[in-house]
Amino acid sequence: MMLYTQSFSKLIDIFRKMPGVGNKSAVRMAYYILSLSDSEVTEMVNVIRQAKEKIGYCSVCQNTTEQDVCEICSSPKRDKSVICVVEQPKDVVALEKTREYYGTYHVLHGCISPMDSIGPEDLKIKELLERAASDEVKEVIMAISPSIEGEATTMYISRLLKPFNIKVTRIAYGIPVGGDLEYADQITLAKAIEGRREI
Amino acid sequence: MMLYTQSFSKLIDIFRKMPGVGNKSAVRMAYYILSLSDSEVTEMVNVIRQAKEKIGYCSVCQNTTEQDVCEICSSPKRDKSVICVVEQPKDVVALEKTREYYGTYHVLHGCISPMDSIGPEDLKIKELLERAASDEVKEVIMAISPSIEGEATTMYISRLLKPFNIKVTRIAYGIPVGGDLEYADQITLAKAIEGRREI
Repeated sequence: MMLYTQSFSKLIDIFRKMPGVGNKSAVRMAYYILSLSDSEVTEMVNVIRQAKEKIGYCSVCQNTTEQDVCEICSSPKRDKSVICVVEQPKDVVALEKTREYYGTYHVLHGCISPMDSIGPEDLKIKELLERAASDEVKEVIMAISPSIEGEATTMYISRLLKPFNIKVTRIAYGIPVGGDLEYADQITLAKAIEGRREI
Repeated sequence: MMLYTQSFSKLIDIFRKMPGVGNKSAVRMAYYILSLSDSEVTEMVNVIRQAKEKIGYCSVCQNTTEQDVCEICSSPKRDKSVICVVEQPKDVVALEKTREYYGTYHVLHGCISPMDSIGPEDLKIKELLERAASDEVKEVIMAISPSIEGEATTMYISRLLKPFNIKVTRIAYGIPVGGDLEYADQITLAKAIEGRREI
């Protein structure tokens, strides 16, 4: 016999496609849906649909927003002369949580990755160059993860930014605060030595 | 500043309510929704809505089904003289996977639990008694988890079944196959000794 009915199997599949959700979790989520009341399911479906409809990308920094220009880009308190380039909107959230950065952002929405056939034209690089062309911008901070694809993207963009006469920097890579030398991987350790500073 | 837009926060909340989903997973899922195309979101929303609409409970065994009477209850191959009583539809799936049981099921949809104000009238016990009243039924196997609430439910139901002159049994509790005595908890070990059989 089939263990699950057709609609239920479809429901499991929907959840299984989500990041970090395995088979067992997907089944639990599907049962959770059945346990909800009709109005709760309607509410859930509406929230999903509305989020997709309302949330777009900021016309300046390409971060997710419900307006044309996002809260950060339209804030007079933010320093428009500095742009921090990140891969994903969640990286903006991570940096905002530090409460240490008062510049603006630019979200690329990915990395150059020939393996996944993602080229520079698939990322928001053109939009970054347009912003860099303005006299206002003095510094671009590259905050891309130090993977092979990330490194390639960082190098590619910094080369494109050269002609604009803008300071291009990158965030420091090294031992995390509270981390143990013993457990750090070799590449991180090498980066930490390379990036040493006088005390 | 708000880290997430309003619609996005709502979306995160929807996922965070799901079983086994923490804060970080909920955020990842919400970003996943944004990464979907419009048609994929429409498809997802439809699957959720349809599952909720189409899936109901079998009028005989109360298991989830898309028909009036489920596949198991309507199958001529299943032994209608034996009813296995379980808490949840997922327990039926677990037992079906063994391919060792050819009787029918009865899903209670919970356990008697005064702490959560779930009384006998909130469970599908009345429906079980109606089935037990038929001459066809010879044995009821109680397969409720051996928690305090489960034990209470097992005892409560077996007492109600007494007058029907039906054999009432329960599944064996003991050391799981492949399990190690050393790591078994005391209660399981006590149950294993109590349930010993001659070899």
